[in-house]
Amino acid sequence: MTDIVTFGETMLRFSPPRGDRLERTRELDVQAGGAESNVAAAAANLGCDTVWLSKLPASPLGRRIVSELESYGVETNIAWDDRDEARVGTYYLEYGGEPRGTNVIYDRANAAITTATVDDLDTDPIDDADVFYTSGITPALSETAATTTEALLQRAQAAGTTTAFDLNYRSKLWSPDEAAEQYRDLFAHVDVLVAPVSDTRTCLGLDGDAAEMAEHLASTYDFETVVVTRGGEGALALHDGDVAEQSVFAADTYDAIGTGDAFVGGFLSKRLDGGTLREALAYGAATASLKRTIDGDVALVTPAEVDTVVADEHDTISR
Amino acid sequence: MTDIVTFGETMLRFSPPRGDRLERTRELDVQAGGAESNVAAAAANLGCDTVWLSKLPASPLGRRIVSELESYGVETNIAWDDRDEARVGTYYLEYGGEPRGTNVIYDRANAAITTATVDDLDTDPIDDADVFYTSGITPALSETAATTTEALLQRAQAAGTTTAFDLNYRSKLWSPDEAAEQYRDLFAHVDVLVAPVSDTRTCLGLDGDAAEMAEHLASTYDFETVVVTRGGEGALALHDGDVAEQSVFAADTYDAIGTGDAFVGGFLSKRLDGGTLREALAYGAATASLKRTIDGDVALVTPAEVDTVVADEHDTISR
Amino acid sequence: MTDIVTFGETMLRFSPPRGDRLERTRELDVQAGGAESNVAAAAANLGCDTVWLSKLPASPLGRRIVSELESYGVETNIAWDDRDEARVGTYYLEYGGEPRGTNVIYDRANAAITTATVDDLDTDPIDDADVFYTSGITPALSETAATTTEALLQRAQAAGTTTAFDLNYRSKLWSPDEAAEQYRDLFAHVDVLVAPVSDTRTCLGLDGDAAEMAEHLASTYDFETVVVTRGGEGALALHDGDVAEQSVFAADTYDAIGTGDAFVGGFLSKRLDGGTLREALAYGAATASLKRTIDGDVALVTPAEVDTVVADEHDTISR
Amino acid sequence: MTDIVTFGETMLRFSPPRGDRLERTRELDVQAGGAESNVAAAAANLGCDTVWLSKLPASPLGRRIVSELESYGVETNIAWDDRDEARVGTYYLEYGGEPRGTNVIYDRANAAITTATVDDLDTDPIDDADVFYTSGITPALSETAATTTEALLQRAQAAGTTTAFDLNYRSKLWSPDEAAEQYRDLFAHVDVLVAPVSDTRTCLGLDGDAAEMAEHLASTYDFETVVVTRGGEGALALHDGDVAEQSVFAADTYDAIGTGDAFVGGFLSKRLDGGTLREALAYGAATASLKRTIDGDVALVTPAEVDTVVADEHDTISR
Amino acid sequence: MTDIVTFGETMLRFSPPRGDRLERTRELDVQAGGAESNVAAAAANLGCDTVWLSKLPASPLGRRIVSELESYGVETNIAWDDRDEARVGTYYLEYGGEPRGTNVIYDRANAAITTATVDDLDTDPIDDADVFYTSGITPALSETAATTTEALLQRAQAAGTTTAFDLNYRSKLWSPDEAAEQYRDLFAHVDVLVAPVSDTRTCLGLDGDAAEMAEHLASTYDFETVVVTRGGEGALALHDGDVAEQSVFAADTYDAIGTGDAFVGGFLSKRLDGGTLREALAYGAATASLKRTIDGDVALVTPAEVDTVVADEHDTISR
Amino acid sequence: MTDIVTFGETMLRFSPPRGDRLERTRELDVQAGGAESNVAAAAANLGCDTVWLSKLPASPLGRRIVSELESYGVETNIAWDDRDEARVGTYYLEYGGEPRGTNVIYDRANAAITTATVDDLDTDPIDDADVFYTSGITPALSETAATTTEALLQRAQAAGTTTAFDLNYRSKLWSPDEAAEQYRDLFAHVDVLVAPVSDTRTCLGLDGDAAEMAEHLASTYDFETVVVTRGGEGALALHDGDVAEQSVFAADTYDAIGTGDAFVGGFLSKRLDGGTLREALAYGAATASLKRTIDGDVALVTPAEVDTVVADEHDTISR
Repeated sequence: MTDIVTFGETMLRFSPPRGDRLERTRELDVQAGGAESNVAAAAANLGCDTVWLSKLPASPLGRRIVSELESYGVETNIAWDDRDEARVGTYYLEYGGEPRGTNVIYDRANAAITTATVDDLDTDPIDDADVFYTSGITPALSETAATTTEALLQRAQAAGTTTAFDLNYRSKLWSPDEAAEQYRDLFAHVDVLVAPVSDTRTCLGLDGDAAEMAEHLASTYDFETVVVTRGGEGALALHDGDVAEQSVFAADTYDAIGTGDAFVGGFLSKRLDGGTLREALAYGAATASLKRTIDGDVALVTPAEVDTVVADEHDTISR
Repeated sequence: MTDIVTFGETMLRFSPPRGDRLERTRELDVQAGGAESNVAAAAANLGCDTVWLSKLPASPLGRRIVSELESYGVETNIAWDDRDEARVGTYYLEYGGEPRGTNVIYDRANAAITTATVDDLDTDPIDDADVFYTSGITPALSETAATTTEALLQRAQAAGTTTAFDLNYRSKLWSPDEAAEQYRDLFAHVDVLVAPVSDTRTCLGLDGDAAEMAEHLASTYDFETVVVTRGGEGALALHDGDVAEQSVFAADTYDAIGTGDAFVGGFLSKRLDGGTLREALAYGAATASLKRTIDGDVALVTPAEVDTVVADEHDTISR
Repeated sequence: MTDIVTFGETMLRFSPPRGDRLERTRELDVQAGGAESNVAAAAANLGCDTVWLSKLPASPLGRRIVSELESYGVETNIAWDDRDEARVGTYYLEYGGEPRGTNVIYDRANAAITTATVDDLDTDPIDDADVFYTSGITPALSETAATTTEALLQRAQAAGTTTAFDLNYRSKLWSPDEAAEQYRDLFAHVDVLVAPVSDTRTCLGLDGDAAEMAEHLASTYDFETVVVTRGGEGALALHDGDVAEQSVFAADTYDAIGTGDAFVGGFLSKRLDGGTLREALAYGAATASLKRTIDGDVALVTPAEVDTVVADEHDTISR
Repeated sequence: MTDIVTFGETMLRFSPPRGDRLERTRELDVQAGGAESNVAAAAANLGCDTVWLSKLPASPLGRRIVSELESYGVETNIAWDDRDEARVGTYYLEYGGEPRGTNVIYDRANAAITTATVDDLDTDPIDDADVFYTSGITPALSETAATTTEALLQRAQAAGTTTAFDLNYRSKLWSPDEAAEQYRDLFAHVDVLVAPVSDTRTCLGLDGDAAEMAEHLASTYDFETVVVTRGGEGALALHDGDVAEQSVFAADTYDAIGTGDAFVGGFLSKRLDGGTLREALAYGAATASLKRTIDGDVALVTPAEVDTVVADEHDTISR
Repeated sequence: MTDIVTFGETMLRFSPPRGDRLERTRELDVQAGGAESNVAAAAANLGCDTVWLSKLPASPLGRRIVSELESYGVETNIAWDDRDEARVGTYYLEYGGEPRGTNVIYDRANAAITTATVDDLDTDPIDDADVFYTSGITPALSETAATTTEALLQRAQAAGTTTAFDLNYRSKLWSPDEAAEQYRDLFAHVDVLVAPVSDTRTCLGLDGDAAEMAEHLASTYDFETVVVTRGGEGALALHDGDVAEQSVFAADTYDAIGTGDAFVGGFLSKRLDGGTLREALAYGAATASLKRTIDGDVALVTPAEVDTVVADEHDTISR
Repeated sequence: MTDIVTFGETMLRFSPPRGDRLERTRELDVQAGGAESNVAAAAANLGCDTVWLSKLPASPLGRRIVSELESYGVETNIAWDDRDEARVGTYYLEYGGEPRGTNVIYDRANAAITTATVDDLDTDPIDDADVFYTSGITPALSETAATTTEALLQRAQAAGTTTAFDLNYRSKLWSPDEAAEQYRDLFAHVDVLVAPVSDTRTCLGLDGDAAEMAEHLASTYDFETVVVTRGGEGALALHDGDVAEQSVFAADTYDAIGTGDAFVGGFLSKRLDGGTLREALAYGAATASLKRTIDGDVALVTPAEVDTVVADEHDTISR
């Protein structure tokens, strides 16, 4: 019995040393990063049994990604792509500081996963899982990936597995209208929606505050749970009429990439562990704040560390 | 003629790169660190003749520690332990940031020094020194170490060498009660006590503010000098009825480990140089603030640098 | 169904940069290394399902070892030791070159595994495995470890799992006589013996060439298979009267540590895959030669790479 | 047609890792740095055609400097010094943090450029340039360098090339009186003066605020443009009776060295591109703030990055 | 007047530390590498004025390549590709040692240069150059690149610029038959052919020794000069009936990548400098042997270093 | 009582990573190196009490050198030079491989030691020492240094301290004739001469084999001991009519710099320990061969390591 199965693209992430620029660097730090595997890894570190489904080239670079994810305790279930032209997606991350932001350059077109069909994948783990999770990045990768995403959500739903979905809008992959159309198709198969405020506004055209957004989404699409995330201003969750809010925990940010995924991984793992909506929000927020102190996409933290943050800071839980 | 002799354990300190976690690091930075050698090294950098007594395995790892301390100008006087099982203590330091603190993992059990008897050591330098210094860590290491600590303090006292002692309570080594009992045995042989407020409260059960603590300690145990340190809130010293206070100098903290030892090294070296109680406190505080900008346990600073901090900031010397 | 289960100690291995000495290094490379996990990792890289059983402290250092092994695809099954004093074994590896050899310093006393009882461990995977493997290092760690080693071999035998054992004599852990006495106790439960020539001579007092040793061992202790390894001079295997020999494949040695374990991992994986005695020897020798080109204890190689070495060099297969 | 020609010394800059001290470092980062080449490199990155004139030893170290500058797109025009004793200037930069400042140690005496005569140099690019730039460091290097500096400014002026000069007073090279005397000789040939407030006060003895200084300088020495820079308090420019002011843009400072040169590079490139006095100040300030986020002396930034800073922050442009 | 113009793809080259494997590396060294820019850089280091034409994305990654090449003194003339999907080619280089070879993984499909048309490029430098050089890699990249390659060779020929071409067959880009057909089309516009023996055999089906190959190629396609390269066995050149041979100079190989390009760069620069066929072969071979001692694709060597190798070893010049 | 006092210059040594070139390196390794301190450090590592006399700038760079030497256990006795212009000598070391040799670039002119007078130095340790050692580099640094060198040799002689001198001819510092003249002046005060064959030939014009050279030198200048070193061909010593020879021990060379100094350090320490001429030669040769496996100028080895080399290889001791 698996707790969480996720499906999506994981890339190699290349970063020059801090202060150095891509234009002249002699050295790149290498990490694996991708929204869905980030969620799986955070949840695995927090004690869940997790499986990550994907398609990767049968090459040292594909194996590099698998090797790192397994080091976090994630079980990997990979469709290995033997084609000569199969490639991993990559992204270049250059750390910045005010007034120059952290910069990301994607080189992900034609990655192996863009060709992933349902038949390529071993979907058995989905049937046995408590939660199946993917995000709005995956259907944006290619038409094939979109078709597969929908099919997997349907399959999960059919098997009684709770489905969770984060909008994760990426403007470099598609337009808000394209995203919105796809989102609406997928929403029919989604139980738990994670909706960043800005994505909700940009793609779905919703106004109002987080509570209004959550209400609107839940009533329109009949989600079991809606979590609206507001970046530095915390998160709000709505489930069955119950509303909970959570501010962020203060963090000395070393690496902000993956904060949202850490939140989702923490939230889901606490829910699976029987936590209340409020407890899960706090757990997610604590996981996210810890992530910011750590190099790389992944929240490599322990349950004890998360508990400490939650306990020390319980006063900051609002509402 | 030596200015300061110290006795205690020095460990190899291993740290992953900032942002990285011990769970997955591929690389560790190596430094030597231990309260008593930190004091000796700070004082040596500030111009004192210092000798550090200890027991280490006759191995490249034992020599690694000696080599680093001699690079700071500390004279080392080592009982070399030839046993196959002789080991150096080690500690792992993982830098954190809010909300995850800097984490220390000790692996120091059965280090060579836990077997150090008076007969193992060449104690002649103690007789010729102005000050003999050790801390509450040393007697906590083993019964043998405790016996040796007491014997060395006695010997110093007998030779007319001023004895200085920092409580340095370590909860991972013993309980407050065990510590208190030992402290009280040693206090009879101590002239200068350095008492962190929290240790004083936890182990000796003293309440009140720093001044009250200092008074109480001085009158109860007949110390020549008591210095109560209050972390970020500065220090207070009492000597012969004279009281001086010193706030901390602001610092961009790169590495906080060893701050207290830097303070003691600075304080003692200024006293030996004829400084008043107030001057010594300022000198100690300045040394401590400089230490925080430097990687490693040791305050690798010059007298000129300390003087600059003291001079620039004299307004912050309170009282 | 698991192919190979191994049991033993894995340490953190610390190495200064090449050319640097432990006496003055500022930096250590970190890897996980231990005979039995090296075998499991080599076999996992070569396509086997492998499980590694051990006991480790519930600390970032214990998790560091698990994380690396899982990155190689090894399933880990750990008795987590919660005691404050639980520690990982460590070893320091300093690369040398003629006339100064590579130097290893162990700091492994009192590692968590020395307290591992059968009850601590989840031994179910042994029953379902094709092969259970451990080596002469494990029983040398402590009396408890010796008792547990014997019990696990017995359990494997009872379950019909083939048992494999490498003498792996370590003079820093026990004397030849102590080892020999223990070996003889264990031999009753061993099906496949890997016997380095020098260990065989030193501990068991056997003379003669590899063939004679193999014959003597097989007839005396009734092993199913005996593999006598001769370092740079290759290996000889005896199974059911059949004898095969294999010379070593030439290698540009970058890191020799773990060569023998890579050989065993390659040999066992080929046997499990239905290879003949000769094929398995060649596969083991090729895995071992590839290992020597790779930093760290583990043969991080693919079956295709091993096949290429075997094919290119088949002429060097003697006999 | 070249936009900007600069003349001056560029040194190799050696820095230990952050937190480490020169007293014990094992490793130095290497960069090329010098006021005039910093200006040329910033301007080149911002789209100008720039040429840097200098004299360097015909050695790998001299070529190291040229190689780095050409990597920024600066054209180098070097008098190669074949003498055995020819050397590059070097400087050691140790990063600090409060209360220990960043420390610079120069080892630049007798660098090849101190022997640079007009005849050594290929001055043709000056005639074809829009702007010729040098700073007060160059004439301070040696009498020969001072003579050459004056001759080049004269030559530029004769050719109708705008001349720009930054006081850049360096107390380690000469006294305020020596500097002032030299400055006054050179001012006759300078069109655009960049005058740091503190240098103006120290060397030229001017009081008053930036506007008063600018007025006084312009009227006394008949400069076309005067830019008074006030460190963290921004800059003020006076041109033809027109006054513009600019505050600094906030920056997370990673490396402050070269901030002033980045400002000049940005200011000049915007003026050459037809920008108003105000636009050029903003462009310079934005370039300077970006520089502070980057390791090394040089503002390795793009015009788009500078435009973004200017646009985002236009409200902070005062007056 | 430019000496050599080259046209082709340059990639970012990523290498893990020696001994480490791509499967688990945390760090990649970054260099720029491509046959035609390698030739340009070698020639520039040896004193030629060289220009490299190419098409790159207008991104930090494209600029990274340009920055490195300009650091070698190569003038770059780039068609900047503004499309979002424009990418640089990359390749991963893993150093090996017997029995595991150095491994290269290309990820170069759809690089910006595959869309480079003659209209994209500024071809003026070709008209003013002594030599125009490209290799068989360029037409293999795409049909567009093939068309452009032929057009540039024609243009060079029309302008009286000597054309040089290295077969450089890459089996991962096309089949021998496809290559041969393309080669034959291009040969009509080639004056100097560099023909590796194995490519000549594989693609053009020629047998015989180097002299016979050279004769056959020269007489069939009417080349002015043919240089047949034989890897470790040296090279043979034929020009106007004159034949010269050159064995390789012994080298401690640190990095073999780019050896052939270093040879071509050395050969062409000596020919341009008026060297005889024999002198040019020796110069090329010496440049190639020096390259092998240097990290990266490029022969970063001086004319003096090449002369020393040639002089010391003149006895090894055969024939 | 000190065993050996040495006097000479120590420089900071800067090396790019292997395979990288000074022309483009981003990083330099830092070590302290100088013939006389290399000898002192080797001897200290081998158990001698050693003192190194020198003059250094009172700066972090001067202290960097002292810090490293004290880390080897050398006692330093420094005349600190407070002048602003005081500098340390530096040298750049670029590792090569056939056909490109290891390259050294000195930047040592005007180092503080060139101004060292007898009055600057604390010469007391010389009087109490067994051996005073310096080399032909020191008098070549400046006239002042030459005068001081002679005065110190005289003083040692007067005090009954054995004087040892290595020709160490450096062609970049002076001509053979200049050296020879100086050597002859100094020889009157030298007891033990170390004479590299090539220096003997170049400067002193001696022909013949090592034995003839030794005879000639001993009889002409009345040395107590002459050691003629022949690089890869070993060494020959003559003392009181007794002749001993020693071939080199094979070594995998990682860093050849300092080999000769290691030899001298080993030779002298064995002589001081009562070793025969032959034993001392073997000890010196073993120390030298170990040095070649270690990064940096200094033979950081233990007596046990040297003994092992001597014992293992005694067959290679010729004659």
